[in-house]
Amino acid sequence: MSTTKAYAAPAASSPLAPFQFERREVGAHDVQIEILFCGVCHSDLHQVRDEWGGSIFPMVPGHEIVGRVTQVGAHVKNFRVGDLAGVGCMVDSCRTCPSCQEGLEQYCEVGMVGTYGGRERGTGAPTYGGYSTQIVVDEAYTLRVPDTLPLAGVAPLLCAGITTYSPLRQWKVGPGHRVGVMGLGGLGHMAVKLAAAMGAEVTVLSTSPDKEADARALGAHKFVVTKDKSALKSVSNYFDFILNTVSAPLDLSQYVSLLRRDGTMILLGVPPEAPQLHAFQLIGKRRRIAGSLIGGIQETQEMLDFCAQHNIVSDVEVIPMSYINEAYERMLKSDVKYRFVIDLATLK
Amino acid sequence: MSTTKAYAAPAASSPLAPFQFERREVGAHDVQIEILFCGVCHSDLHQVRDEWGGSIFPMVPGHEIVGRVTQVGAHVKNFRVGDLAGVGCMVDSCRTCPSCQEGLEQYCEVGMVGTYGGRERGTGAPTYGGYSTQIVVDEAYTLRVPDTLPLAGVAPLLCAGITTYSPLRQWKVGPGHRVGVMGLGGLGHMAVKLAAAMGAEVTVLSTSPDKEADARALGAHKFVVTKDKSALKSVSNYFDFILNTVSAPLDLSQYVSLLRRDGTMILLGVPPEAPQLHAFQLIGKRRRIAGSLIGGIQETQEMLDFCAQHNIVSDVEVIPMSYINEAYERMLKSDVKYRFVIDLATLK
Repeated sequence: MSTTKAYAAPAASSPLAPFQFERREVGAHDVQIEILFCGVCHSDLHQVRDEWGGSIFPMVPGHEIVGRVTQVGAHVKNFRVGDLAGVGCMVDSCRTCPSCQEGLEQYCEVGMVGTYGGRERGTGAPTYGGYSTQIVVDEAYTLRVPDTLPLAGVAPLLCAGITTYSPLRQWKVGPGHRVGVMGLGGLGHMAVKLAAAMGAEVTVLSTSPDKEADARALGAHKFVVTKDKSALKSVSNYFDFILNTVSAPLDLSQYVSLLRRDGTMILLGVPPEAPQLHAFQLIGKRRRIAGSLIGGIQETQEMLDFCAQHNIVSDVEVIPMSYINEAYERMLKSDVKYRFVIDLATLK
Repeated sequence: MSTTKAYAAPAASSPLAPFQFERREVGAHDVQIEILFCGVCHSDLHQVRDEWGGSIFPMVPGHEIVGRVTQVGAHVKNFRVGDLAGVGCMVDSCRTCPSCQEGLEQYCEVGMVGTYGGRERGTGAPTYGGYSTQIVVDEAYTLRVPDTLPLAGVAPLLCAGITTYSPLRQWKVGPGHRVGVMGLGGLGHMAVKLAAAMGAEVTVLSTSPDKEADARALGAHKFVVTKDKSALKSVSNYFDFILNTVSAPLDLSQYVSLLRRDGTMILLGVPPEAPQLHAFQLIGKRRRIAGSLIGGIQETQEMLDFCAQHNIVSDVEVIPMSYINEAYERMLKSDVKYRFVIDLATLK
């Protein structure tokens, strides 16, 4: 056991504060990682405030983790002390259900073990995430991190990156496709970079004309202000795919009509109120709406390798651990380009 | 020009009544068909009552037409006088847009010409449907009808048949798939027969326990009363596909949860109130919701040939033309197994 410094929410109504806990001992298949950077995901805030229910307190959030291996178990094959390593949204799953067998551990039929807010298989001990100085994880759920990219920008790839990469791959997005991206936040800005790198024509759909320069700098080929009716009409029946990262209340109908025949909207955000679905909008053009949840371990590795090859990282604002409560407030106002990342050196 | 006896709605508020009109002369590419049977589709009623807007009166409904060729134009290649022939929901389209070029005329980007309630390309003359003694149609939009099947039961294949066949083929439904069918009406009973013939395991999902024997007689392997919570739970995360033919108000969420990971619900019915879509239901299992509209001409022919091969027809109640207004009232109460078909001999 090793004492770990962290920040935790003691309860749903409390701000995050310094906290200490014991990580498990490094088992035969485990790697111990000194955490260097951890991204701040909007879902951290939802869970800290118990907005989805079922939160376990004290809660140490954080599932966009990069660091350096400090110890490996006797049977570890793929990591050595000193290697860079990453951990995303899950640290375990049942490993035997069809989803796990197919490398889709995120859909584990028993339920994946979340990097934080979950319970370890076997012991039932609560899991604690990356707002901490070190983590112990089975190597099967640990990612190799390329050493050619700036590490702070790599951290958000472990959630925001894979969440957008996975559906783009599942739906075989590439050259000749027109991709719309709704919402230019943590997920949206990664969707723009990744879809552009895959060769698609990328359009950012935004309520705010102010974001055009940023969207184009990220790699978007087009920018449509959705409050401008004639601009919106110019992309009616236009897109092969729309990645919908919006988690605010939403008129789904306005956006579905932008899909061409056989076009697909992929839902990545969860609005608080379920929007209405007008059946004829799907029927009349054979359109589809699909969901997608992060990605499997193998696909996450593939995404990291893809990002290394294409020199893609997240645009981040690096913060000290002690800034986390302010960061949450700013995140609520979308006042970040595009992801806060905690420098864990500030917690040593 | 040839005078044609028919039944028409003179206005949205009026019952159907006898009517006469002139069909166009048989052009070089046209076939003239003496109509023997015409199915009564629920959409006839919607359009007669102008519930979707844009109805043209007087309206002669009917787009599930089978009959015998009585005349062919000089350049007609595939039909001879005396052949059986069929006409479905459309009699023309632009023929040049990508959808038409791909044999998906139902999604014609200019707009397909409906068999009734549309306007002929060129002349702009209103189109009149199959509640009439004869019709003149370009052979490119005319189907060959197998002579081995009872004709009255073939008529509904031209709409109810192709509407369910097309998505089953698009999504490659076959052995090993579990298919749920919501709604056991004109579309639903065809979905059961066709999905079973394609080798899938078929389950009827119904609010009414009374329908079990009928569902099994149609070929369903399982029957689930959706008001029975434990029965419903037994098919949670179960189906690869659900064909949703319901056009009544609907709790979509209850049914989406019956799809397994990567499962797809195909919408074929249009409820009056758009149901709510809970994003997390799609995201958490990578599920999809898709729409589908009838089918193209080539696929409709393939469907008729498939039905001949598998000896599939619609279960019908044959009625005289003069019964149409009562038939509409009964259709509103779902009091038909499963399609009314007009015997046009009663209009001669």
